[in-house]
Amino acid sequence: MLRVGVIGCGGMGRDHIRRLTEKIQGAEVVAVSDVFEESARKAAEICGAKVYADSKELINAENVDAVFIVSPGFAHVDSLLQAIEAGKRIFCEKPLCTTAEDCLKVVKAEEAAGKHLIQLGFMRRYDKGYQQIKEALATGEYGEPLILHCTHRNPEVGTNYNTPMAVHDTAIHEIDVLHWLVDDEYESAQVVMPRVTKYSHSELKDPQIMMLRTKKGVCIDVEVFVNCKFGYDINCEVVCEDGALKMAQPAYPSIRKNAAVSTAIDTDCFVRFKDAYDKEVQDWVDNAEAGVITGPNAWDGYLAAITADALVKAQETGQIEKIVSAVEKPEFYK
Amino acid sequence: MLRVGVIGCGGMGRDHIRRLTEKIQGAEVVAVSDVFEESARKAAEICGAKVYADSKELINAENVDAVFIVSPGFAHVDSLLQAIEAGKRIFCEKPLCTTAEDCLKVVKAEEAAGKHLIQLGFMRRYDKGYQQIKEALATGEYGEPLILHCTHRNPEVGTNYNTPMAVHDTAIHEIDVLHWLVDDEYESAQVVMPRVTKYSHSELKDPQIMMLRTKKGVCIDVEVFVNCKFGYDINCEVVCEDGALKMAQPAYPSIRKNAAVSTAIDTDCFVRFKDAYDKEVQDWVDNAEAGVITGPNAWDGYLAAITADALVKAQETGQIEKIVSAVEKPEFYK
Amino acid sequence: MLRVGVIGCGGMGRDHIRRLTEKIQGAEVVAVSDVFEESARKAAEICGAKVYADSKELINAENVDAVFIVSPGFAHVDSLLQAIEAGKRIFCEKPLCTTAEDCLKVVKAEEAAGKHLIQLGFMRRYDKGYQQIKEALATGEYGEPLILHCTHRNPEVGTNYNTPMAVHDTAIHEIDVLHWLVDDEYESAQVVMPRVTKYSHSELKDPQIMMLRTKKGVCIDVEVFVNCKFGYDINCEVVCEDGALKMAQPAYPSIRKNAAVSTAIDTDCFVRFKDAYDKEVQDWVDNAEAGVITGPNAWDGYLAAITADALVKAQETGQIEKIVSAVEKPEFYK
Amino acid sequence: MLRVGVIGCGGMGRDHIRRLTEKIQGAEVVAVSDVFEESARKAAEICGAKVYADSKELINAENVDAVFIVSPGFAHVDSLLQAIEAGKRIFCEKPLCTTAEDCLKVVKAEEAAGKHLIQLGFMRRYDKGYQQIKEALATGEYGEPLILHCTHRNPEVGTNYNTPMAVHDTAIHEIDVLHWLVDDEYESAQVVMPRVTKYSHSELKDPQIMMLRTKKGVCIDVEVFVNCKFGYDINCEVVCEDGALKMAQPAYPSIRKNAAVSTAIDTDCFVRFKDAYDKEVQDWVDNAEAGVITGPNAWDGYLAAITADALVKAQETGQIEKIVSAVEKPEFYK
Repeated sequence: MLRVGVIGCGGMGRDHIRRLTEKIQGAEVVAVSDVFEESARKAAEICGAKVYADSKELINAENVDAVFIVSPGFAHVDSLLQAIEAGKRIFCEKPLCTTAEDCLKVVKAEEAAGKHLIQLGFMRRYDKGYQQIKEALATGEYGEPLILHCTHRNPEVGTNYNTPMAVHDTAIHEIDVLHWLVDDEYESAQVVMPRVTKYSHSELKDPQIMMLRTKKGVCIDVEVFVNCKFGYDINCEVVCEDGALKMAQPAYPSIRKNAAVSTAIDTDCFVRFKDAYDKEVQDWVDNAEAGVITGPNAWDGYLAAITADALVKAQETGQIEKIVSAVEKPEFYK
Repeated sequence: MLRVGVIGCGGMGRDHIRRLTEKIQGAEVVAVSDVFEESARKAAEICGAKVYADSKELINAENVDAVFIVSPGFAHVDSLLQAIEAGKRIFCEKPLCTTAEDCLKVVKAEEAAGKHLIQLGFMRRYDKGYQQIKEALATGEYGEPLILHCTHRNPEVGTNYNTPMAVHDTAIHEIDVLHWLVDDEYESAQVVMPRVTKYSHSELKDPQIMMLRTKKGVCIDVEVFVNCKFGYDINCEVVCEDGALKMAQPAYPSIRKNAAVSTAIDTDCFVRFKDAYDKEVQDWVDNAEAGVITGPNAWDGYLAAITADALVKAQETGQIEKIVSAVEKPEFYK
Repeated sequence: MLRVGVIGCGGMGRDHIRRLTEKIQGAEVVAVSDVFEESARKAAEICGAKVYADSKELINAENVDAVFIVSPGFAHVDSLLQAIEAGKRIFCEKPLCTTAEDCLKVVKAEEAAGKHLIQLGFMRRYDKGYQQIKEALATGEYGEPLILHCTHRNPEVGTNYNTPMAVHDTAIHEIDVLHWLVDDEYESAQVVMPRVTKYSHSELKDPQIMMLRTKKGVCIDVEVFVNCKFGYDINCEVVCEDGALKMAQPAYPSIRKNAAVSTAIDTDCFVRFKDAYDKEVQDWVDNAEAGVITGPNAWDGYLAAITADALVKAQETGQIEKIVSAVEKPEFYK
Repeated sequence: MLRVGVIGCGGMGRDHIRRLTEKIQGAEVVAVSDVFEESARKAAEICGAKVYADSKELINAENVDAVFIVSPGFAHVDSLLQAIEAGKRIFCEKPLCTTAEDCLKVVKAEEAAGKHLIQLGFMRRYDKGYQQIKEALATGEYGEPLILHCTHRNPEVGTNYNTPMAVHDTAIHEIDVLHWLVDDEYESAQVVMPRVTKYSHSELKDPQIMMLRTKKGVCIDVEVFVNCKFGYDINCEVVCEDGALKMAQPAYPSIRKNAAVSTAIDTDCFVRFKDAYDKEVQDWVDNAEAGVITGPNAWDGYLAAITADALVKAQETGQIEKIVSAVEKPEFYK
């Protein structure tokens, strides 16, 4: 039984606590912590865990085998470094850290510790739809992937959501999952800005078309449209030399009514990726004993950070921006 | 140029006159007739044809090469026999006649005349959807057909529409097209009566499941649901030894809106089978010179009549009713 | 932790043992038994359980809280009666018993014991596809169900598979799930026998169309085609007064290749209903402590038996056969 | 009856002659001409027309009401200017001329003549799929279009097909139809070059992603993939403020076979756009008497030329290239 301490007990944190408590095999939440005592108390009620006022204390608690970080992004770096030092297993919600520099610090600390401790919460790699595509590509039956057409559509966002958040909060999932899907690394980024929807506001260019090029020359376009109104609509088509594959959509009944046949589209990511959230955490727990990470790791977190930075720069310049890592990929992560 | 006289100038008749005048190559309407003078006059305005008070006179007019019968069903038999006697080419809207006996009379008259003169207005044989299925079956790639699952759904019907009309006015199209589709003849009929929809009335059992068995043992079920509310929805799946084929639906855009992706369903047969109506008439005109009939003929009209009779009987008895022809299929129609 | 003893350690039994051991939360297999010692030994290796030569001894073992019956159908009745007597919780693979009489015996024994102990292994009620339809019907948005069109297609069967097995081994799943889906009971049965596929043999009429009528008048047709060659293809369309709903198919990528766009169809029931198998067992375990059964119960097993008997009789007579329960539904099961 | 003279009697020319002779209402081919006498003779056999050795003579023949130009692109300009001078009605296969300069010359000649004479052979505007989308946009129900995602995929091309031909011979159809679809004009162009498929050769970068931006800010991406192997696959999705619309695909049966359900994709443009070819010519004939052009006109031909030039330049530079007209749109074409 993996004894987990959860740092960050907001909505997402409590979701994970419920998941760990009710659905996941082989784990239990024994400690919780939040800067807001009230949130921590509510969380403790779900799982019966001990409340820690100080997250560092939670990390170092003897009965805590593993740390689950769901605090705001800016707070991740400190908790990560402390947990690495304490040799605890770590699940960290995305982003790894809010700057590429901090990500690199964490990468180096983990490498120095010599143990693979960190799994990053990019759940899409655990989605059945992407996995089916990855498996199909692996058969070789379709030749090499050449182009990816994707959409990341969201019904609507709040007024505090601005243009760079389309990268950091939205496209960030494509950034992680797509290079994993085609087993490749990004080389450059561009952002095309279409006419803005009437449902947006002055601080948000919506929709956007984000384009990425990989080192092998795969060209990716991602339509990011966060006020599309009609649903949470994730699509991915992989065009290969010997065929094109479209990711399956979630299975819903087809309904004949009102002179149309229709199928439901999900309206939020928690329904759309429900199974993926469960599986990423179960996988992390399952691998804890063996001391391995099969999901996205700290290096993936660093790559996501530099790719996001390039896209944000490209939003401003309108140019094709290079994506360059400050260091070579360490042997440790190969 | 085939000079056509049209008998029956109601809504359907005027539709055909417009079709013959505006769309069909190689035909012109030169004569029209209707028991209501007003209808005939309106029709004449569309095409500039001469109005005949008496349909028999129209049939025998020298400049009339071909007779197009769109009068009420009970009036067909007289016009058919007169036109056969006059040696005119004939297009007759369904039904051939309202009784099997009259149908047989027409069949025998045509046979006696020794010329294939009559094409019957079962337009579905000209629908691209059915034709694609028939072509696929002809390749042999799917083996023998074993089962047909069909639906004939209609948004709603008037209060004068009653239980037997579900056969005579609705399923009659399946009766003709399905045996042609699998190149076979009917042997027996049964009707299953499900719970009645709240949208029906005391004289109408709706929906019904009509079942036909062919001589080769193909079993057919047709859901006839004339108050289905949602659309005019024609489906046909042919289950074969080596695969199952579903007829294509009309092509409409797929639309993402309101948390669903949807595609339109037609709401009436004139839109659904628009192209088929045009093609059946063009085909009749194209074959006129060569003196052949490639569409449904008088014998098909007789078969439809005895099959419909068996289904109406089966509606009442709840039993499996035999479908027996009073005569062997004449050599003339083979 | 529910301590489970498994009776029957063949292929299916070992599948369930693996499931209970690896996937299910809150259960462990502590005892196994099989008439073939070798099978029991293999099973024990999976889960580390104690092997019992005698299933009755296993049932009565003190550390066994629950009995999981996966032995051949004819052996169920004895184990069921013994387990009821011992007051153990029971999961019994379908069928409950091989005769309606034995089913009734078990029903009465459970009723006499006064505790809901038995869950029957009809996994389809746990399939997401059926559940989505049931939820949609429950909204009332579609009015009353009137007709169900279903298919149960299987790629191929062995030469020992004969005509009645199309009911007992195949349609039995539709028998259970469909009346549950529309919350109704069966009243009569009929079987239509189409032309036989070339892939069948003299002892097997394949395909068959099985028809059931419920007390509320819902008419059901199930195409049972066990040598359809192309896949394990389960379909269900519910035609209601205010719309028609088709069950979702499993989600697979859509692939463009060889002048076609295609989507995979499963080829066996274990892949198709993988999640349903897991969920039925988890649900049984979850409800064990509370002493309730939310899945199919012993009475459902009895209803399946008398419905199957009527369908087998209808296969022979070609007539509509009544489905009559020997007793009224006991209060205990309402 | 419109008396048509056809210039250019190669494969495409003879296709149009067959169309004009057999399918089109109200036209007859009375004159043909080709630099290869043999081609002209073959063409004359189809329609019984008189053969002219000199195309100018054909244009000026008294019994020729209209000129149909299907000669190679470089020869168009002379025939167009002669036909305008002769005041003949003109149907010209794409391209209008091979250079923007020549296109402008033709535009000015037509304007000077003061009569709308030229229809250009961009048949896609007559395709039902695009028309359904255009009609849907016109309802206003979907708000303004923001993004178009398109594919133009072709099974394979010959070895003489090179990189700029991906614009001139392939994307040229999207260039014309897409700005018409959203009722807008192009402002800039970019081309992204993904990894090249193994099925291409050194002179051809395949696939390519061509991007166009309109004056209203609609951003268009067109995947041009001429060796995609699997089919002739034309897709168009219009993302609007209030919904997204995908163009219907041609209707084919859905077939269950080999563990998959599949639907055919066309393999060449003549099958895919068969109806559109017929309709564009019929429309031209229908409008001839009234002296109007409702299809693509000479100005559209000029716009296509300058857009294609910008895309070819963008293929070389990798930059975003402006699309600038040398003259304002003349009143004559508004």
